Amino acid sequence: MDKILRIDMGAEGGPRATASPVGAYTGLGGRGLTSSIVSKEVDPLCHPLGPGNKLIIAPGLLSGSIAAMSGRISVGCKSPLTGGIKEANAGGQPSQMLARLGYTAIVLEGKPKNGSLYKIFINKDGVKISEDMSLKMLSNYQVVEKMKGEFGNKIACISIGQAGEMRLSAASIAFTDMELRPTRHAGRGGVGAVMGSKGVKVIVVDDTDLPMCQPKDPEKFRAANIKFVEGLRAHAVTGQALPSYGTNVLTNIINEAGGYPTYNFKQGRFRGAAKISGETYAELETKRGGLATHGCHKGCVIRCSGIYNDKDGHFISKQPEYETVWAHGGNCGIDDPDKIAMLDFLDDDIGLDTIEMGATIGVAMDGGLIQFGDADGAINLIKEIGKGTPLGHIIGSGAEVTGKVFGVEKVPVVKGQALPAYDPRAVQGMGVTYATSPMGADHTAGYAVATNILKVGGDVDPLKPAGQVELSRNLQVATAAVDSTGMCLFIAFAILDQPETFQALLDMLNAFYGIELTAEKVVELGKTILTLERDFNIRAGFTSKQDRLPLFFKNEPLPPHNVTFQVKDEELDTVFNW
Amino acid sequence: MDKILRIDMGAEGGPRATASPVGAYTGLGGRGLTSSIVSKEVDPLCHPLGPGNKLIIAPGLLSGSIAAMSGRISVGCKSPLTGGIKEANAGGQPSQMLARLGYTAIVLEGKPKNGSLYKIFINKDGVKISEDMSLKMLSNYQVVEKMKGEFGNKIACISIGQAGEMRLSAASIAFTDMELRPTRHAGRGGVGAVMGSKGVKVIVVDDTDLPMCQPKDPEKFRAANIKFVEGLRAHAVTGQALPSYGTNVLTNIINEAGGYPTYNFKQGRFRGAAKISGETYAELETKRGGLATHGCHKGCVIRCSGIYNDKDGHFISKQPEYETVWAHGGNCGIDDPDKIAMLDFLDDDIGLDTIEMGATIGVAMDGGLIQFGDADGAINLIKEIGKGTPLGHIIGSGAEVTGKVFGVEKVPVVKGQALPAYDPRAVQGMGVTYATSPMGADHTAGYAVATNILKVGGDVDPLKPAGQVELSRNLQVATAAVDSTGMCLFIAFAILDQPETFQALLDMLNAFYGIELTAEKVVELGKTILTLERDFNIRAGFTSKQDRLPLFFKNEPLPPHNVTFQVKDEELDTVFNW
Repeated sequence: MDKILRIDMGAEGGPRATASPVGAYTGLGGRGLTSSIVSKEVDPLCHPLGPGNKLIIAPGLLSGSIAAMSGRISVGCKSPLTGGIKEANAGGQPSQMLARLGYTAIVLEGKPKNGSLYKIFINKDGVKISEDMSLKMLSNYQVVEKMKGEFGNKIACISIGQAGEMRLSAASIAFTDMELRPTRHAGRGGVGAVMGSKGVKVIVVDDTDLPMCQPKDPEKFRAANIKFVEGLRAHAVTGQALPSYGTNVLTNIINEAGGYPTYNFKQGRFRGAAKISGETYAELETKRGGLATHGCHKGCVIRCSGIYNDKDGHFISKQPEYETVWAHGGNCGIDDPDKIAMLDFLDDDIGLDTIEMGATIGVAMDGGLIQFGDADGAINLIKEIGKGTPLGHIIGSGAEVTGKVFGVEKVPVVKGQALPAYDPRAVQGMGVTYATSPMGADHTAGYAVATNILKVGGDVDPLKPAGQVELSRNLQVATAAVDSTGMCLFIAFAILDQPETFQALLDMLNAFYGIELTAEKVVELGKTILTLERDFNIRAGFTSKQDRLPLFFKNEPLPPHNVTFQVKDEELDTVFNW
Repeated sequence: MDKILRIDMGAEGGPRATASPVGAYTGLGGRGLTSSIVSKEVDPLCHPLGPGNKLIIAPGLLSGSIAAMSGRISVGCKSPLTGGIKEANAGGQPSQMLARLGYTAIVLEGKPKNGSLYKIFINKDGVKISEDMSLKMLSNYQVVEKMKGEFGNKIACISIGQAGEMRLSAASIAFTDMELRPTRHAGRGGVGAVMGSKGVKVIVVDDTDLPMCQPKDPEKFRAANIKFVEGLRAHAVTGQALPSYGTNVLTNIINEAGGYPTYNFKQGRFRGAAKISGETYAELETKRGGLATHGCHKGCVIRCSGIYNDKDGHFISKQPEYETVWAHGGNCGIDDPDKIAMLDFLDDDIGLDTIEMGATIGVAMDGGLIQFGDADGAINLIKEIGKGTPLGHIIGSGAEVTGKVFGVEKVPVVKGQALPAYDPRAVQGMGVTYATSPMGADHTAGYAVATNILKVGGDVDPLKPAGQVELSRNLQVATAAVDSTGMCLFIAFAILDQPETFQALLDMLNAFYGIELTAEKVVELGKTILTLERDFNIRAGFTSKQDRLPLFFKNEPLPPHNVTFQVKDEELDTVFNW
């Protein structure tokens, strides 16, 4: 993890790879690194699909080591969806493998002039870039299958589906899981479109013969990791709820709280919630020979994923995440778990952000394109994207474009990015994060649900504005830091509630790098990252006016609590006043 | 002209019309009035298609009188295309008739809840609003034909085609000409989508039995008007070039100057220019029994329009404007005058901005959707809009959305609005106007072509940055004032060059209203209008970053002069420093 691999896709004579020392970016990983490179090297006014944009793929600070939960990987660029800076991260195997190959980041630069499509193979012997037009318009599952045929089973893949090739603003980048399936996605903000614009279909990673990344102080590191894992296992969320039901444990909880956006954000409870809850999915998974508890990468001890089969025992998709189940479920009035799993699979296969897709279909339903509850209609809309039809191009461009193209007034986006699965009227802290995060509406940027609903890290009334700005501020700062470690964000539940687990994380970082990180320095890191992200957006033309929810959240009360979003604009503008 | 007609389309129990005194808006007309109402009454953060937006239709200060050239009409709202304030104006008959009916403006407010479609009939007896679902998805020519059947031939119509009903961002509002054809359009910024969102298909105006609007001092007024007309006839542009060849006289001129954007702004000269020049059109019009010189409204003495027939003498369209011929012609590599006239007709019929449509098709061609030069392909794309297909929805949403949906990097827009027919690299003063006008890229907002190319009002080298900011500033101020008079903007050629003609205009205004308007006050009026327009945009979230041309104008030299846009960002930011 001491070099950056830069690949100039627009170099004269064809793409050229250069590995160089980390230099000025030393000490950074994950989001801290991607946002630093974007901030420093990308013109905020460049076209997101032009040669001036860069796509940075960066493992975290502890990726590649034996540290539990250290398999997240960050993707950064200027976003074609928001027009601002973007970091989207994912689980899967590539993070650990890239780290072991010694790469702090891969940076895709430039743009091929001729519309060529490339595959990149990286192993201990170096980097091989080959044009391969046979990959054209393959889906993610297809391209991974093809790579397995070429390079064997010990690889991991980073790929785009048809959506990324078509440079659609909702295109994701897929990372393969432990079963070598392209199920883990850096979903948000159209990062897949940027990879598509660089002409890169797939990056194949092979860490054969390479050892784990070694800490400076192995003994301290091992001891801290044991404490860290104990802490995760002891906490109710990471030790019980997530392993048992995955993220979809939230369906019943958020629905009960009246914050489950239903029918394109018209109400906060969905009648069909029980049919698509985590409990229901887990039962079906067990009954049908799938898996209710499964990790997305080696070294995961929370194991919030799973494998979902159809009634005949055939694989449909990985266990759909809560956000996906909501987006394609309640938000669209769909309560069939099999259809939702099929939508999840199609999104993964074509390479699409499930949140953006569910929100987009909700907008399309609101505009009368198909009816709420029409699961087959929703499936067809996603299939249109894979086929590359004009309708597919619209839907694949996300909720804002779809709303504009079909003249729909009610479009739940901030900075052009669709809101996730928590209505900001009933979870007001979440509303502050949606409005102000430099990423656009993003639940992971400052997960106020924790304290508003789950009562982790304190208790702030979700229906009132009091305390939400401070809550969101602290969470956004902490998240920016966690996103830089390469740790799964879910560790936040345990480290927010258990000081000794937080200390164990610090001890791991310190033992690994031989540094003296303190809680204060972690906070400083988070603030530094947020500051440079916001600065990029300001240079791209964003003002406080972009730090706002759509007006209907202020004007239309949400049943059952009949509340509106109450945090004042002036308060939103203080989120980043440290 | 002493009352404002407000129609609340969302009133309980159905739309309700109320006429009230002009009040605080006294002394304002045209753009001055529309921008004042938008600025004061519309929340800059509202959804352009929501009930909070207002659509203002306002004749000019001298409309309805015998003053020559006084038949322009302004339409204002928050634009669905740019997200900022919008004024688009048009010729045709409704301006004079509305003025004689005593209306300073019609203001459409609110929004019907049930998707109903209405027609509004206004005559000396008052206002009648009727739901009429039989109008649904009629084209402009169809709806006008139907209105003639219902209300006779003495009417004028303000209508939207299918594009406006579908609330597409490139939808225009049509105003009928002297032949009761819907050929004059308030084209830019999607004003037709706002009319569609209000559920208004057509406003029928009948001024039967009503006299001309009377000046306070008829003698002085008449004398000034004679001098004014003499001035217009004496100037080479308004007295000769425009009457002979219409606005399309510019094709040869701008092409010769190397500023004719060709193949989606790739080069500044088009090989096929001569085939689609104003000279060629005039010859064909005369030969085929059309008309090469014709007014768009009664009282026009420039008569820059015409009537274009096919080779069998059947009407295709009015004489296409230069901007239209360019947009559908050189910009798309099309050099067939009949096909361009057909595209002009289709745009008018479906209700679309011809500039936005040509630019959009250019972007679609650049993205490989159809080939440059494919006239039938272009015609089909426009027809798709009329049919309401997904592809039609995309194209009808304009160049920016089309670029986004098809992943095209080179999209010539400012503030989301397509650039008109002068490449800002070869006509740098125009670039300043495109970049900084509160309207988005708009040639009419400050027509620097006059001084850069035609040498009217001075001589500023078009290829150099020197003097362009001052030129654009002065023209933007003057234009904002002229747009408020209801005068055709083409009078600017004569009043810029001939002080006595400018004085005649002032004399007319003074004689009409019994006021003491001076040149200084006209400048003040222009500045006031621009200031409040910019203020609206700032409140809507715009910053100086939106006052920029797309980067490729800075980076890619334009043949044949091989120049880039040279005016610096810091200079652009001084345009509105009076």
